[in-house]
Amino acid sequence: MELLKKKIMEDGRVLEGNILKVDNFLNHQLDIGLLNEIGKEFRRVFQDRKITKILTAEVSGIAIAAIAAQYFDVPVVFARKTESKNLDQETYEGKVYSYTKGKHYKIRVSKRYIAKEDDILILDDFLANGQAILGLKEIVDASGANLVAAGVVIEKGFQEGGKILREANVEVHALATIDAMIDGKVIFSDK
Amino acid sequence: MELLKKKIMEDGRVLEGNILKVDNFLNHQLDIGLLNEIGKEFRRVFQDRKITKILTAEVSGIAIAAIAAQYFDVPVVFARKTESKNLDQETYEGKVYSYTKGKHYKIRVSKRYIAKEDDILILDDFLANGQAILGLKEIVDASGANLVAAGVVIEKGFQEGGKILREANVEVHALATIDAMIDGKVIFSDK
Repeated sequence: MELLKKKIMEDGRVLEGNILKVDNFLNHQLDIGLLNEIGKEFRRVFQDRKITKILTAEVSGIAIAAIAAQYFDVPVVFARKTESKNLDQETYEGKVYSYTKGKHYKIRVSKRYIAKEDDILILDDFLANGQAILGLKEIVDASGANLVAAGVVIEKGFQEGGKILREANVEVHALATIDAMIDGKVIFSDK
Repeated sequence: MELLKKKIMEDGRVLEGNILKVDNFLNHQLDIGLLNEIGKEFRRVFQDRKITKILTAEVSGIAIAAIAAQYFDVPVVFARKTESKNLDQETYEGKVYSYTKGKHYKIRVSKRYIAKEDDILILDDFLANGQAILGLKEIVDASGANLVAAGVVIEKGFQEGGKILREANVEVHALATIDAMIDGKVIFSDK
């Protein structure tokens, strides 16, 4: 997606440790016009697929999923990381390994909001080590619903997440794939 | 907002302890059509006001703010509750008291994303004890920006948050105000 790549090159910041900061437009401040174009592009990519619900995880996936859902005309469900009084007791759980924290945490969706008849599209901001999407897949699998595919805004192609997901038979589509970050510059894949 | 009140009556669930669960459409599963109508209504309410940015706090405010921002044509910034590698070192901080946890926690916004020239509209899902919005106000005040008003989807009028905020000179507008919850029924204010 050329508009997205342009935005990453202009407003993204590459920090030490292969960290790409896109907090100017994607996960702290939100460029709503760009999110609309991202939503339309996800719709175009998955235009022939039957999708009844979009699933994401708090926090950074929520705005992307909500804006995109307008073009799919389906509800969004976001998995909760934290214990919350807003969450039912009966939940589907997924385990997510956090490399930053060196431990697993759980994400949960109330059993009310995913049915085995659902066709689920997972959306998220980043695909790096793939752990968040694996956790969401666990939730979808536990519910008996059909996981159609996962769409991510930015894939870090030099990390193993894309490979792990594809080996787990998850169809993954990234709107921008980064091959490397060299001297503060982002190198995109030709894909 | 009649559509919202109807939705609360039909799909909201009143639990013990004056808990109103709206996780079916507002803060776990998201009814995107309803969120669009909520966004349009916020725009109508604040139509004559100069607003340059919408501010909310993770988690439940994000989808509401992102969808509403389409009608204001301004960016959203969401304050972070957690330490995050996505967050700059230089932040404006607000303190939020959690009655559930019996302690304060901090919310933060990078100094890059609020300027003293900004005219800020705070949006959130619930107004109950007012602590989250007070924390957001602290952030706006620290930045030197102008706090135009706070818009909330649902105000629990029987809790003290609305009074506290109005006494702190925050203009507050709720799309639905609940006076009481009796025998599992929601009683709305006439306001």
